[in-house]
Order: sequence, then structure tokens, then C-alpha cells
Amino acid sequence: MPDLRSAPELDVIEWLGAPAPITLAGLRGRVVVIEAFQMLCPGCVQVGLPQAARVRETFAPDDVVVLGLHTVFEHHEAQGTRVALEAFLHEYRYAFPVGIDRPGASGGIPRTMAAYAMQGTPTLVLIDRQGRLRRRVFGHIQDLRLGAEIEALTGETDATLVGEPELGEAAPGCTIAGCAP
Amino acid sequence: MPDLRSAPELDVIEWLGAPAPITLAGLRGRVVVIEAFQMLCPGCVQVGLPQAARVRETFAPDDVVVLGLHTVFEHHEAQGTRVALEAFLHEYRYAFPVGIDRPGASGGIPRTMAAYAMQGTPTLVLIDRQGRLRRRVFGHIQDLRLGAEIEALTGETDATLVGEPELGEAAPGCTIAGCAP
Amino acid sequence: MPDLRSAPELDVIEWLGAPAPITLAGLRGRVVVIEAFQMLCPGCVQVGLPQAARVRETFAPDDVVVLGLHTVFEHHEAQGTRVALEAFLHEYRYAFPVGIDRPGASGGIPRTMAAYAMQGTPTLVLIDRQGRLRRRVFGHIQDLRLGAEIEALTGETDATLVGEPELGEAAPGCTIAGCAP
Amino acid sequence: MPDLRSAPELDVIEWLGAPAPITLAGLRGRVVVIEAFQMLCPGCVQVGLPQAARVRETFAPDDVVVLGLHTVFEHHEAQGTRVALEAFLHEYRYAFPVGIDRPGASGGIPRTMAAYAMQGTPTLVLIDRQGRLRRRVFGHIQDLRLGAEIEALTGETDATLVGEPELGEAAPGCTIAGCAP
Repeated sequence: MPDLRSAPELDVIEWLGAPAPITLAGLRGRVVVIEAFQMLCPGCVQVGLPQAARVRETFAPDDVVVLGLHTVFEHHEAQGTRVALEAFLHEYRYAFPVGIDRPGASGGIPRTMAAYAMQGTPTLVLIDRQGRLRRRVFGHIQDLRLGAEIEALTGETDATLVGEPELGEAAPGCTIAGCAP
Repeated sequence: MPDLRSAPELDVIEWLGAPAPITLAGLRGRVVVIEAFQMLCPGCVQVGLPQAARVRETFAPDDVVVLGLHTVFEHHEAQGTRVALEAFLHEYRYAFPVGIDRPGASGGIPRTMAAYAMQGTPTLVLIDRQGRLRRRVFGHIQDLRLGAEIEALTGETDATLVGEPELGEAAPGCTIAGCAP
Repeated sequence: MPDLRSAPELDVIEWLGAPAPITLAGLRGRVVVIEAFQMLCPGCVQVGLPQAARVRETFAPDDVVVLGLHTVFEHHEAQGTRVALEAFLHEYRYAFPVGIDRPGASGGIPRTMAAYAMQGTPTLVLIDRQGRLRRRVFGHIQDLRLGAEIEALTGETDATLVGEPELGEAAPGCTIAGCAP
Repeated sequence: MPDLRSAPELDVIEWLGAPAPITLAGLRGRVVVIEAFQMLCPGCVQVGLPQAARVRETFAPDDVVVLGLHTVFEHHEAQGTRVALEAFLHEYRYAFPVGIDRPGASGGIPRTMAAYAMQGTPTLVLIDRQGRLRRRVFGHIQDLRLGAEIEALTGETDATLVGEPELGEAAPGCTIAGCAP
């Protein structure tokens, strides 16, 4: 049996679109899909966030919870304010809760992004019903495969790995695939 | 427990892209995805068949088998010949086996299409590991949902319904959604 | 002044979707856009023909005439019959006239395709108001550019080249770009 | 001869991506394409700005100049700062000059947007070689048609209208088509 890592708790300074602060502990028993993004990252706006919205429409909220995580690691002045993020979410009609990742020391990688060792944005994270980190994808993943992976986690009654967390290399800067610090 | 119908055996006059005739009985133990199409149906060419090809690339062949079924119910002269179908499959590079549905009496609905009560093309059929008909979709289904449904069937050890077979109305003729007799 | 070649007359055995045979001579005074295709060529079905349909919807028919040309150079049995082409045009709702290029000797390159030295399908041809060949593109051309080139020809009162006919290399077989003999 | 209106001069507080301030007067002799946008308007990000980038790649800069105009009429705090716009343009790799429209009195419609009677964003404006306003489109316009309209203006030696400026109704708020105040 592989050694499954417990997903680090989210370190969020504020939640938008949520009546109260959200914790992974409070979501135990459900599959959690986290879309980590920056509002000025083209690959997030064009691919990652629309996919997260489709996930939210496809799966029952009792089984699968979709969360956004705003992980600003560049252009802090431009996209690091609550008001900017709020306007962005409003215009794009994203209805899932979005947490603002706690800024790192001296403007570096924010806390949750660092705890999950994310390479950049967009990053998609899957957490199982027992609160374990099961998948972390930097860049894009096809809908067909993502649908299968989420379903596999919802069907689990006992822990079995759907695959090793994906670890790869990301060059700094933004491409259509995503932005890396 | 709902009454699950055993999927009717395929009534095919010839298989292309297969070394030997294929039967559902011979595929027992695997999930079977059938894409019923006509080579001159725009919704099949633009949406249904490319999706079937993605399914084949996404799931392990030991778990999920993708089959095409050429169910000609109109323009028999144009698309009803083996040579036409073979040229079509060659040009579009479809690599899954395709069976030619046995023509119905006096050029009507072909046999397998009738046995499954398909409304037109494209129709996607999902059959579980026990050989039972679990899903029948006329028109289109989103990748995210299809991925989840197939995964749910692969994970089954005991029969549980993912949903009632979809029964709806289809107007005669072709639209982007599909062709109905 | 460049030496502008008069566009070869179309050598067509039959016209579909036209009340009477069409000749370039009879269209003198109008810009003519010819989409040469094969019904089983993926790049024609997915890109070339839909673009031709958009051209037809965008420009006034008194100024710009869109013609299809079925230039079968492979899979003659599958796509070389009138009935197959008719069914295809019907299902895809193409409303412009389509001529069937006269077969070449012993099943080779058909006559009009050869006269225009087309490299394969899809090929787009632009003919000016004076009946001169002004453009020949194998593969794809962006809408923005095509719109500009057609408009340039409609605005001409005197001959000026919009660009040399495009001459390039095409490898045999079909890709998404097109099919070459 | 229709009464052609001289295009109002741009009232811009700062230009990004330009070595010096840009005026329409200074561009006389060239066709000018203006894409008015807001960085948080989905229809601008997904459709309008990519189209403007294609225009820039398609036409010769001596004939056709593409300008962006940031016309913020909502979410001023979020998208009204130079630093936010600069980060946006950097991440999306837009290479044409972008002017920041001068804010209107008490945060209303900005000056240039008002002078052109724009209904919202995105709005595309075409100005001819003589500096006259020839087209104003709120929402989207097909590439094929836009290419033709721009080409028609580049080919003009004497003034002839390509069409009346488009005047229509826009409901307040953002849709995929655009944002209206």
C-alpha cells in the first residue's frame, strides 16, 4: 500500500463566495477539487477555471466540492487585491467559493501553494474522502480523464491510488499551459 | 433493485479493423462503449466519433473496449458499402473496430439499431462488465460526464445503476446533434 | 506588370445544386471562389467547406460566386459516385453549386484539378472579375486574410496582383491540413 | 454622398506599448482599427482582443494600425490602474499600443468612449485613411467580414461608405457578447 500523504490544510486569508471560512477538515467525507489560479494567468482564464466550473455542474455537491484558490505569485499589485478578484469572479460568473492564499514571506510563493509544492498556475488538486492528496496537475488535463479520476475517488470505500501525484518541470513565465514562478 | 436488461448481442455482417468477429459475449468482464454512427452524419463526424477515439486513448483496453457500429438507415447507396466505410475510417484514422449493422427488412432500421431501440445517430451505448445495457445516449454527452460514467462502470464489483437509460424524442432528419430516421 | 494567367475553364461532368451547367466564362464580371474538395478528406469537411459556406454568407452573390469542385483522386469507389456526393451535400446542408471534376485518364488526377496544378484537397482558388487566376491555396487560409483578399478582388477596376499564386510542396496522404495525391 | 463624420480625437491619459503619445491626426493616411476593451470583460478577453491581435498580424502596419483602448466604466478599483493593465497586457502578450481612456466625470463613461457613443465593451472601431469614422461594432464581428471591411478601407482612394455605423441596443451588464454600462 502506498504511503498516502494527508493534504495540507488550506492557509487562506479570506473566502469569497462562501458564507463562512472553509477547511478541508470540514469537508472530510467528500472529494475536493481545488483549482489554483491567478486572475491574470491566460491558461487559468481560458482552460482551468472553465473546466472547474464544468466539474461543479457535473458532480453532485454532496460528493464533490469545487474550490478556487487564488495563489498570487506575480503582479501582486495588479491581481493581489480583494476588490480585483471580486470583480473578476463577478464578471466571469464563477459560483464556487474562492480562497485567497496567504501571501508568502516578502512576496514570494503563497503559503498553500508552497505547502502543496505547486509549480505554478493553473494547478488542479484532487483530495479524497479521507482528506488525502491524490492528484496534483500543473497545466491541463483532459475532461474525459478528469471525469474518470473524480468518479474513481467518489466511488472509493477504501484507499487505493489512482496514480502518483504528477511531478514535473515547469519553466518560469506564462504560456498557454500556465504560469510558473 | 432495478431490472437490468441484458444488452442484445450485436448483429453485424462484417467487422473492419478487427482480426476476427467480435461478440459482446466474448467481451464479458470488460466495459463496452459502442458508438453507433453513419459516415455521412455531421454530428457523428464532428462530435461522436472524435469522442469515441478519445475514450479509446483514455482508458486501458483491458478495462474498456470501444467499438464503432455503422448503422445505416438512410442514403444506403452512398454510405452502405464496405468500400465507402473503409475509405472513411482510413482517412479519419479511426483505429477501433467497426461493425456493419445488418440491414433491416426492405432497407429500414438495421437490426442492432432496432434491438437497442436507438433513435438515430450518433448514439452512445455503455455496457457493463456483466454485459448489461447501462446507458444509451442519442446526440451528445459531455466528456467530463462520460468519463465519470465509464469509470463508474469499470469500478463496479456489483450491479448498481448509474442512471436510467435515457429515453427521449428525436425529430426525423439531421441536425448538428445527430440524425434520426 | 506581372503576367496574369487566365483561369482554365472548369471541366465538369455534372453540376449539383445548379439549374444549369456553370462556366467561368458565364461568371465573367464576378469574383469566383472555388473550393476543391473530396467528401472523405477530413481537412475539407472540418475546415475548407465550412469556410466556403461562410464566404457565401458574407459576400453579395452579385459580386462573389462560391463554387464547390469535387476532385476525386483517391477512393474512387467510395466517393466517386453522384449519389454519394449528393447525400453528403444534403446532410451537411451545403447550398452552393458543386461540380464533379472530370476523371483523369486511368483514374489519376481529374482534369480541372490537373489544369489548375492543384496539389491536393482542400484547395481554394480565387478568380478575378476578368477571369484570371489570382490565388491558389492548398490547405488552410485564415478567415481574416481570405476576407481581405476577396474584398481586394471585388474592388478592382484594373488588374493588380494581390500576390503570386502560392506554390509549395505537399506530401502524399491525408493530414488535418488536407489530402495530397 | 453620405455625410461622413470625422472620428473624434482620442482622449487618452497614457499610452502603454508606445514610444510616444499617439494621435489619430498623426495616423492620417492609414486605416486605424481600435479595439475598446476592459481587462475584466470576458467577451473582450476571449474574442475581441485575440481578433485585434490577428488583425495586426494580417495587415501591413503601413496600411493598417491596430490600437487598444482601455475604457473602464465599471470595477474602477480593480481594472482602473496602470499596473493592472500593464500586467494584463504582459501576460496575454498583446503587442499593439494601448491607450488608457480618460476617466469621465465622477467615475462615469470615460471621455473617448463617450465621444464615440460606444455602447460597451468590446467595441471595434474602423477609421479610414482620411480620419473619418466608418464603422463601430459593439460585440462581435466575424473575421471574414472584418477582413473584407478593413481591406475595403485600405483600397479606397476616394470616400465611399462600406456601411452605416452600426447602432443598436445593449442591455446593461456583461454577457459573452460584451459588457454594457
